Order: sequence, then C-alpha cells, then structure tokens
Amino acid sequence: MTDALALQLAEIRAAGQAAAALDGGVRTAALRRFADLVDSRRADLLAANRRDLDEQAGRIEDALYQRLKLGDGKIDALVTGVRQLADRPDPVGTSLGRTLLDDDLVLTKVAVPIGVIGVVFESRPDVIPQILSLVLRSGNVAVLKGGREALHSNRAFMQLVGELNREIGELPERWATLFETREEIRAILDYPEYVDLVIPRGSNQLVRSIQESTRIPVLGHAEGVCHVYVHPSADMAKAVDVAIDSKVQYPSACNALETLLVDGECAAEFLPRFAEVAGPAGITIRGCERTRSVLPDVDHATDDDWRTEFGDLRLSVRVVDGLDAAIDHIHRFGSGHTDCVVAEDETICESFLRRVDSASVFANASTRFADGFRYGLGAEVGISTNKTHARGPVGVEGLMIYKYQLRGAGQVVRNYAGTDARAFRHEPLS
Amino acid sequence: MTDALALQLAEIRAAGQAAAALDGGVRTAALRRFADLVDSRRADLLAANRRDLDEQAGRIEDALYQRLKLGDGKIDALVTGVRQLADRPDPVGTSLGRTLLDDDLVLTKVAVPIGVIGVVFESRPDVIPQILSLVLRSGNVAVLKGGREALHSNRAFMQLVGELNREIGELPERWATLFETREEIRAILDYPEYVDLVIPRGSNQLVRSIQESTRIPVLGHAEGVCHVYVHPSADMAKAVDVAIDSKVQYPSACNALETLLVDGECAAEFLPRFAEVAGPAGITIRGCERTRSVLPDVDHATDDDWRTEFGDLRLSVRVVDGLDAAIDHIHRFGSGHTDCVVAEDETICESFLRRVDSASVFANASTRFADGFRYGLGAEVGISTNKTHARGPVGVEGLMIYKYQLRGAGQVVRNYAGTDARAFRHEPLS
Repeated sequence: MTDALALQLAEIRAAGQAAAALDGGVRTAALRRFADLVDSRRADLLAANRRDLDEQAGRIEDALYQRLKLGDGKIDALVTGVRQLADRPDPVGTSLGRTLLDDDLVLTKVAVPIGVIGVVFESRPDVIPQILSLVLRSGNVAVLKGGREALHSNRAFMQLVGELNREIGELPERWATLFETREEIRAILDYPEYVDLVIPRGSNQLVRSIQESTRIPVLGHAEGVCHVYVHPSADMAKAVDVAIDSKVQYPSACNALETLLVDGECAAEFLPRFAEVAGPAGITIRGCERTRSVLPDVDHATDDDWRTEFGDLRLSVRVVDGLDAAIDHIHRFGSGHTDCVVAEDETICESFLRRVDSASVFANASTRFADGFRYGLGAEVGISTNKTHARGPVGVEGLMIYKYQLRGAGQVVRNYAGTDARAFRHEPLS
Repeated sequence: MTDALALQLAEIRAAGQAAAALDGGVRTAALRRFADLVDSRRADLLAANRRDLDEQAGRIEDALYQRLKLGDGKIDALVTGVRQLADRPDPVGTSLGRTLLDDDLVLTKVAVPIGVIGVVFESRPDVIPQILSLVLRSGNVAVLKGGREALHSNRAFMQLVGELNREIGELPERWATLFETREEIRAILDYPEYVDLVIPRGSNQLVRSIQESTRIPVLGHAEGVCHVYVHPSADMAKAVDVAIDSKVQYPSACNALETLLVDGECAAEFLPRFAEVAGPAGITIRGCERTRSVLPDVDHATDDDWRTEFGDLRLSVRVVDGLDAAIDHIHRFGSGHTDCVVAEDETICESFLRRVDSASVFANASTRFADGFRYGLGAEVGISTNKTHARGPVGVEGLMIYKYQLRGAGQVVRNYAGTDARAFRHEPLS
C-alpha cells in the first residue's frame, strides 16, 4: 500500500468515527437533500450515463449494458428509496437493552455503525446512491470501487455527493470516497484495519473472487441455487404456479428456482401438469432418470446440474422419495439462499421450515419473495448467505453493530471478588 | 485435506443440521446430565489432569502450567456454569419478529444456531466443558483442537462426552469432535465450507495467527490495550481507585488497564496521588515527558509502549490536553476492547461513551467489569473486538444467527409486479 493511500484510508477511518457521532437529524437532512439533488440533477446524470453507454455500445454484453443504463424510471425509484430512508428512524444510538448490574451501575447495549464499508460493484451506477443512502442512514462511511464501464455515471453521482458535503457542513468530507483503480481496491482488501465490511455487488465471479481474496468480512452470496420441493399433499395447481413463478418471474435473479424436487408419490401426477405450463413459458428441463420416465423428451441431468445456478430458463428436475430425501438434496447441493416446500400437510411444512438450513425457507410461496423490499426492510444492501452477522435480505440493520456502555459511580471489581464479594443484581431495565 | 478428514467434516456438518432440529428439551436434559457427569467423574478428570501436569512440570512456563491445572474449585465452577446454562431458556427457534406481508403470507425471523463452531485452545482443558455447554445450549456442534500439553485432560473430558452421547440417544454422535493434530486443524481452517465460525482461546499470538490464516470468521480479540482517561472534573479518589483496580485486580486479563491518560489540567494533582498507591501495589510506570515532569523517577515511555498490552504490572502514562486528545489517543493506539473515562462532568462522560469506538466504553467504573459473567450474560465464549456479528463479551447469543421463514398459501410474485400490482401490507405482528 502506498503512503498516500494509507493516509487516505486513515482519514476515512477518522471520518467513520465522526459520522457515527453526528446527530441523527443531520443524517436525515443529508438524506433528504441527497434525494433532492439526484432528482433535480437528473439531466446531468443521464448525460454522463449517455457517454458511458456510447463508449460501451457493442463492447460489453447486453445484460451488462442494460444494467449500465440509467433512465427516468430508475432515477425516480432511487429518489423514492432515498426519501423512504430519510423517513425511517435513525438507528444510531438506539438502546438494545439495559441491565442494572448493581446500585448506580447500569449497562446499556447500544446500536452503533460498523464503521467503514467497502463496496465493490460492476456496471450498475445506481449502486452508488443506493448504498450511500443506506450507509448515511446507518452512520457508516463508504469506500466505493465501480467498474470502468460506468466511469462517467459514477463520477456524476460523486459530484452530487461533493455538493451535498458543501451544503451540509457537518458531514465529514471523507464519508464517501470513490476509488477508480484495481490496484487501490486490491490494496484495500489486503488491510482489515482500514475496512470493516466488504459488500460486492455484481456477478457471482466477482463475489467469489472477493470472498477468496480478503480476510475482511464479506457480506453477500456467490450463488443462488434455490429449490422448490413438491410434496404429495400439495395442491397441484398451487405447486405448478409457485414453481413457474419462482423460475419465470425473473430467471436471472438470485432467488429464482434452479432445481425442482418432486416427490416420487406425486411425480406422475405433477410432472405432466407442470410441463404443460413450463413448455409454453420457455422453460427447458434437465431431468433425472425418474423424471425422464414421466417426461421422456427432456434432457438428462448430471450431478453438475444440481449445483448450477443457470440464471436463465433452464431448470433441473429431480424425483426424490420423501421429505428427508428432499432436505438431504437441498443441504448437499443448495447454496443456503432460498428454498420452498409446497404442501397442504402442515406438519410437513413446519418440519421443512424448521430443518432446512437456508437464509430464507418458504412454505407455499414463490422463492421470488426473498427480497428486502418484499420483506418490508426498505432498501437492501444485498442478500447474504453468510452464517454470521446478517443473513438473507439485508437492510440498514445489517450495517449496524453494538457496543456496551457502562455508567458507574466509581465501582471497582475487587469488591465483587473473593470472600465477602458483593453480588451483582443483574436486573433488566426497560 | 485427506478424504478421511473431508468425510468426517461432512458428518459434522450433518450433525450440525441434526442438532439444530433437536427439541430444546433434549438439549436441556443433555446439559443437566453433562453437569452431573463432570461432577461425579471428577476423580477421573483430576487423575488425567495429574498425568498432564506431571508430564509438563518444568517443561512449560508457570502461567501455562497454572492454566493447565484442574482442581475441585475449577470443577465446581464448571458444574455450576453448565447447570446455569441448563436453566436458561432454549434460544433455538425463538421468534425475533413477525410481519404480515399480505393476507395469509407471514414472514417470521427466527433464531437458529450458526452451525459448526471451531474452537482452538491452548493449555486450559476446562475450555472443553465450557465451550461445549454453550455450543449445546445454542444448538451448534463443535470441532475442537486442544494443545498437546493437556492431552490426557482433554481426552478425559471427551470420554464424558462419549458417555453423554450413549445416554442421550437423540444427540448426533458427531456434535463434539476433538482433533489432536496441527495438520488437521490447519486443513480445517482452509475450508470455510466445513466450519462457520472459529473461536481461538489462548495467547494473543494464537489468536493473531488464526485471524491471519483463515477466511472463516474468527470471533475474539488479539489485543486488549485498554485505557482510563482522568478528566479534570473527576473525583480524584475515585480516579485513583478505578485506575488501580483496572490494573491490579488481574493484570494479565485482557480487560486490564495498559495506558492511563491524564488530563493536563489535573496531572499535577492526580499523578502524585496515583503514584502513592501505585508504587506499593507493584505498578511500574512508563511515562511521557509531561508525566516525568511531575513524577521524575519513572521510566520514559516510547511510542511502542502505547501499543503494548503489557499483561503485567507495567503501566504507560500519558498526559493529554482535553477529551478530544484522549479520544484521539484511544482511537490511534487502542484495540477497541474496553476504555473508560473518570469524570464528574456528565456531558464529558456522555460524549466519551458516545464517541469512543470500542466494544465496551465505561464512565466511572473499572475496566475489569468487561466480562460476560459481570454483564449478566452467563457463560462467555470470549470477548470480541470484531466490528461485525458479535462485539464485547459474547455469550450464547453470539453463537446464534437467524433465518427467515415465510408461510404462504400459494402466493406468486407476478401478482405483486407491474401494473395492477397488489400492494404489500407489511404489518408487524406480535
């Protein structure tokens, strides 16, 4: 790491401490003003985005190009999202519990920001206002690294941030910093002392490469291999509908269905009904031997298919015998993202909900519901398949941690030790 | 990783899924029986420990030898601790919040175990029953790696675990596995797919070497460089008492005082009074120039001293000008473990409590209070200086994560999208 970069990062760390100590009202005012700026400067934003689009036309895949593109619809959604965050209560300093340890000795667990959030993203420039508004609401600060393809758009958003900083004097200038080179972000990922949490927003490859190359905690998921298991007690019409929606409603989403598990007892009934809708919907099935014995025209599935996030209308289908076998398959091949059972038998539903070890576990609802907005969290940082800190769709809460404050009157520990030790009261306070 | 080890770890992962699905009553019964076994087999435990002590006598440092040693006192404390955990409500499956997303569509956030907890410890064999009881209460499973110096003691504890497993048939056999070679634990730390969280219990060197060599989240702290800042508004007698207790009550503890910060406005008054008590208590001071102008006989402190966890009766003392300078020093040289202000001025106390970014922040109380038992958490896994997941003293709660369960009636997302989209209700349920 160069000295100049280390100095910048030390300034960002200090900005984090200053941001955490700001009054919540300043954060709210800044969010409102930020929304207004994005709204009123949309012509500048769209013009900068036009430059990116012109430079990238024909040079990047269509999916990336679509994600790069800003429009009035996206800007409107961003502005609404930032205003909603401004309306939410400020989480910093919220008491999470108080305990009277002894007379005049009160322990309080308070919510505090994590500190410095690193965000690495590709293509989509709207990540900047989205994440920055979450970071601002939660009292954190951010270092951002966007893709070269969105250079002009990213700079246009950062120009608004500069303007915001000039208008809201209390904001520490370094609360949001955009880095533009790979070398800078590479250096940052090597130093856990400067960044507390990394959030990658982009392809599975991007997420995996970051997970594998840093000791900083990474929030996110590399894969979304989601399952729907159709139990013999299922209402077959519902089962078809849930499975179709889980796949077709947005096939490239991380919460889209990849493997349909059909119980052996209802395969003969369910599979033809499913195929009748799936075919016209554009779904192409890769089935196990038993699936092929019911639907002889479908391709043969390999073990690799069970582990694959197709991200398109390909679907793997496997016939399994009973709930245990379905759960075994999910635990063996799934990614712990979102899995669903379709059953009318409540015992089966409850057993599935309890036993399946995934971030989101559903009974009789499309896997596509796994989403921060649909869960009512407001904006979303992303969906985590981590087993620590935050799991599933992550909103403002996932950017918070806590600290313990102890208010005393000069108490010392030696009075609570040894013979004649004073006893603690440990009474919860409201 | 060898195939045999990979197979074992896959079995442990499966045991984790089984343990999470156990009825809470089974976990409680197992905890009670485990306490009884430790209590009634203490002769076997002490005999095994005697073998370790005899083999290690003269071969390891005294501090390690003391930590290796079991006695009736330690066994009693262990048994009491396990029984207290048995008395606590089972946390698995606790609802952390419910939201009505729409008619017949209910989202529940439930507490679930993290999964497989890796524990690496040195010398102290009592880590096994301590951590295993926390792991059992929280529905997790554990892989343990102890030091060679405690081989016989560790095996004696694991024998009790084997007996427990035979008596409580529902417990998955692999819920607690002891590994004895460095190669095994090295291989395990390389594979985040098998272990969800690593807890090192031992020297700072052990913790740091694990933090630096695995991508699995590590819960703990390498250093405890704790501060007491004496403000001019402090009651000087209280300030002396808090500072002395913070250092002397247990100098090698991680929450013991390492650097005393004294405000320039009260240094001339406070320092001589402190030195009068510190000297007879065995404290040796290393002071900055301004400290030495008041206490000319003390050694000179270097910049390295501000970063050092002495772990003994050495203490660094620095004179600083005002709250901001004190906080700057703490943020620059501290380890984010536990820091304290002594002041009668409430504004100063509140500002310190709010601004200092450490796991535990105190006003007018000894830093030695930073401890799971004293906080009323019951048993403690350790103290974390992490900025994600769990911070400060960590009890059962730190071994839990959550998942989202969604109970529907066949709802699909396409009805909530596009024109004529159904609106979500997002009503909190009790």
